[in-house]
Amino acid sequence: MTAHFADRLADAIKIKGNCVCVGIDPVYSKLPKAIIEHKDLNDETDLPVAMDAIFEFCTRVMRVVAPLVPAVKINSGFFERYYWEGVENYYSLVQEAEALGLEIIGDVKRGDIGSTAEAYAAGHIRNCEFLDMEHIVAPDAITVNGFAGVDGIRPFADAALADGKGIYVWVRASNPSAGIIQDFADANGKKYYEHLAEQVATLACEKQYIGAVTGMSNIGMVIGGTTAEQTQNLRDQYPHINFLVPGFGAQGADAQSCVKFCKADGTGALIPASRSILYAFDNPVYKDQFGEEWEKCIEQATVDMIAQVNQALAERA
Amino acid sequence: MTAHFADRLADAIKIKGNCVCVGIDPVYSKLPKAIIEHKDLNDETDLPVAMDAIFEFCTRVMRVVAPLVPAVKINSGFFERYYWEGVENYYSLVQEAEALGLEIIGDVKRGDIGSTAEAYAAGHIRNCEFLDMEHIVAPDAITVNGFAGVDGIRPFADAALADGKGIYVWVRASNPSAGIIQDFADANGKKYYEHLAEQVATLACEKQYIGAVTGMSNIGMVIGGTTAEQTQNLRDQYPHINFLVPGFGAQGADAQSCVKFCKADGTGALIPASRSILYAFDNPVYKDQFGEEWEKCIEQATVDMIAQVNQALAERA
Repeated sequence: MTAHFADRLADAIKIKGNCVCVGIDPVYSKLPKAIIEHKDLNDETDLPVAMDAIFEFCTRVMRVVAPLVPAVKINSGFFERYYWEGVENYYSLVQEAEALGLEIIGDVKRGDIGSTAEAYAAGHIRNCEFLDMEHIVAPDAITVNGFAGVDGIRPFADAALADGKGIYVWVRASNPSAGIIQDFADANGKKYYEHLAEQVATLACEKQYIGAVTGMSNIGMVIGGTTAEQTQNLRDQYPHINFLVPGFGAQGADAQSCVKFCKADGTGALIPASRSILYAFDNPVYKDQFGEEWEKCIEQATVDMIAQVNQALAERA
Repeated sequence: MTAHFADRLADAIKIKGNCVCVGIDPVYSKLPKAIIEHKDLNDETDLPVAMDAIFEFCTRVMRVVAPLVPAVKINSGFFERYYWEGVENYYSLVQEAEALGLEIIGDVKRGDIGSTAEAYAAGHIRNCEFLDMEHIVAPDAITVNGFAGVDGIRPFADAALADGKGIYVWVRASNPSAGIIQDFADANGKKYYEHLAEQVATLACEKQYIGAVTGMSNIGMVIGGTTAEQTQNLRDQYPHINFLVPGFGAQGADAQSCVKFCKADGTGALIPASRSILYAFDNPVYKDQFGEEWEKCIEQATVDMIAQVNQALAERA
């Protein structure tokens, strides 16, 4: 394993030839019939049964996409709704993704002041050091909420760095009401998210956070792809920053918008898509072609997204 | 149980005669020797052993303080560092606190966009509805990160309301670097946290969120007590809002500052303290008096804090 997250990520993007990241946001009721109608998995009200169904689905999705994409993003919220059993499943999936050679983003959006940030970082981004649990690795990076400012972000960044991992600070969200909060502007027209980005970038450029091969930081930013019209200048402004660009597909951002956060060589950003890939078997485009073969639907949707993203990159060049 | 969180909280404050909230932020290495030197609890590197020690400590602390204070705040980060077993312990402590008749704040600082916010809310503020798990209640309120704006906050508020529970949106933090982020000001001098507070207050005042008895909302705000000099005007500005005011004690806010967020009758705010109470047995003031009787140190520190807060309230009146 390359020692620095940013260097390892760039390698993974180059090897797979794309920067697509499959988002794992599983919802029981949306799973393929072949799974939820199975006699052992057919009871959403029974927590272990529901979890088994979700775990079966997610591992099969990851096996389908692992040869195609460099990374997966596992959304902790969809596991935490199943309490501690969900959290155990989240970590199990991280191990599965690790074994498949994927870069893993743990989408946990944690954030708090110093001592609590340290505690969250210990559980979420450090590899496990407890007796008989040393085999449990943390994700390669997690998302972080930077509301507490630099002294709330640094504990996550330092913990990540110690194990060759990274963080992505949530800077500009992709949802409709985010603009009211995040575009709040000062007298010079500088927006709140730009101010936050400055704080993050200043921290990110401290020498210890920079990867030796790529010159990129292990501290990145989450920028909603739906906001690319106004936020794309962050790419040029912060050459050391890796971006995570949600919003493709179900949320309405297109490939042309999302690739604005890539560098010229196609690295520098990960473009996640969740619903449009996970539930491709409900999309007539794929359903008509593959019928009940839901894994083929997911595979083809991934291949198609990769083609769209790479075409957008080629057209931009 | 009174149906609305704000009404129930005001009752609890009146019955106990104070608005002190004991913060449960357990760190193994700081636990009383009587616990960590016990042969069954004496191994920090063994996760189940460490968790047993922490659970023993926290339940005993809660039994000591339950007759004295209306509420406890359980900090999820200090449990999540123990992975899923920590999360199971967090929920077990919530059940213990519930049995002790305490109002329980789950300090989880979760926040994300719509569908993920719904998933987090299902796991953190709705009572459990899975088969054979219906006995598991959620905290009475959780802390929420409002970065995504109103459509990221509403799913938490609605889920909370459905079970007679509440949320506190993190509006102004108590740590040093928070000001750089949160005091970012527009052309009129309005600060980011004031803008966020406006958004939260507008949502909070929607009729469905207002308690019939007190007229207070189930949507509150977290405001660092260390910032009272500049933020105390929020009390008059938002009469429907309950505040959660961290920062007392170890973080440097005094009782005079914190009570600025209380209403005239002493309700309207909860003032948490963690380290100054939890580790009172390391404070010479109490150690010299009670020696190894650590529960007596904690009890006395709680009694003393209540006296300080109530005196500050009386002097203000």
